[in-house]
Amino acid sequence: MKRLKCILSYDGTYFSGYQVQPNKRTVQSEFEEVLMKMHNGQTIKIHASGRTDAHVHAYGQVIHFDTPLNIPADRWKKALNSLLPEDISVKEVQIVPLDFHARFQAVSKEYRYKIIRSQERNVFQRHHAYHFPYPLDYVEMKEAIKYLVGTHDFASFCSAKTEVEDKVRTIYEIEFFEEKDELIFRFVGDGFLYNMVRILVGTLLDVGQGKIKAVEMKNILESKSREKAGKTAPGHGLYLWQVHYDN
Amino acid sequence: MKRLKCILSYDGTYFSGYQVQPNKRTVQSEFEEVLMKMHNGQTIKIHASGRTDAHVHAYGQVIHFDTPLNIPADRWKKALNSLLPEDISVKEVQIVPLDFHARFQAVSKEYRYKIIRSQERNVFQRHHAYHFPYPLDYVEMKEAIKYLVGTHDFASFCSAKTEVEDKVRTIYEIEFFEEKDELIFRFVGDGFLYNMVRILVGTLLDVGQGKIKAVEMKNILESKSREKAGKTAPGHGLYLWQVHYDN
Repeated sequence: MKRLKCILSYDGTYFSGYQVQPNKRTVQSEFEEVLMKMHNGQTIKIHASGRTDAHVHAYGQVIHFDTPLNIPADRWKKALNSLLPEDISVKEVQIVPLDFHARFQAVSKEYRYKIIRSQERNVFQRHHAYHFPYPLDYVEMKEAIKYLVGTHDFASFCSAKTEVEDKVRTIYEIEFFEEKDELIFRFVGDGFLYNMVRILVGTLLDVGQGKIKAVEMKNILESKSREKAGKTAPGHGLYLWQVHYDN
Repeated sequence: MKRLKCILSYDGTYFSGYQVQPNKRTVQSEFEEVLMKMHNGQTIKIHASGRTDAHVHAYGQVIHFDTPLNIPADRWKKALNSLLPEDISVKEVQIVPLDFHARFQAVSKEYRYKIIRSQERNVFQRHHAYHFPYPLDYVEMKEAIKYLVGTHDFASFCSAKTEVEDKVRTIYEIEFFEEKDELIFRFVGDGFLYNMVRILVGTLLDVGQGKIKAVEMKNILESKSREKAGKTAPGHGLYLWQVHYDN
């Protein structure tokens, strides 16, 4: 038995998210279907670093699975890419120790959120970035970020549907930069709650528009109430960018 | 009566090309449907600088049409963008003299062709660039370009289905450059025949791979036979980039 770690990229547009759901097209179900073909009908379960929602993309999602097949890593990559649908691509395959776990051993994750700043819709990016042409006060947004970075209870910044008890997370880095007509946010943290990055983006856009003041971030965090923070930014601007492991 | 010139951008992925065809989704039919709504059921015909094929994109297609409506140009842009489907966007609207013609007055056109050079498929660009990861000899390709630029009979570089008699065209410029993992070709000319840019790209890729020598371009042009040139590169890498007019 061998354990394989794969780095995947997928276009979330036509997926109902990562995780298997009955009668829905998901990344996990498409991937497991390919593995079933390669294993003559045997079910092989895959484990991801975490789920992604409907329409959310991955530039570098990490999964692992166990296989009895004796195939070198580079041939695995070719075989998977030739069988997977065109909106999932395997960027890297590695044979890892049997105690590697894509979720439990992830030490940090990076998400990015892409916003189109041009007045006109960009037809080519319509499923891959959020169109937000309104003025933004970058100075105030940078001020708000200072309150958010660090270790906090992020109860105000996660969906009311979040099931985990412990909502304390550490954000190591938040920054944004412009690239052509895009504004790109980067979030690096030890973990993110359900909808957390999208609510952080929605809140920072409210700050940029003057609807919320930067200094209010402190109260919003302390209130531990979802209603205090801003809107949830749409899923199609979000990318799970990278997952980091110790080794 | 007023004549309006519009610059359009469209994602060709889900269109059977620009021109109206029965029971097909085309750019022209979607646009004319919107105009019909705005004119209370009256048919308004639009005229483009030229057709684009199925899956071919436009960054800057130009069309014109006549309207009895008395609306300022900037309000036209907003109205059209609010009614058009999300894969067509109006970038500019201008009121022009009644003798302006999008096709007959175009003095030159620029096409671009995007190629993804990375080994792995890029899931985000799968409908917007041609994946071609094989080695290319850029020096030999640049040599081939020298034979193609200028005024020639391009009969060897157009589809056998081309209906026009006169196949003499002038190419002012061909160049290519790398941008991240993309290789982008630019073609500027006074006009291009049916499939001409795609056959030029296919031929240049054959040259880059050593299947055709640069010096053979001369014979290929002189042969006036489609079979001598390279393959037709796929439509989804092609963009009608810009159309130039004198005024």
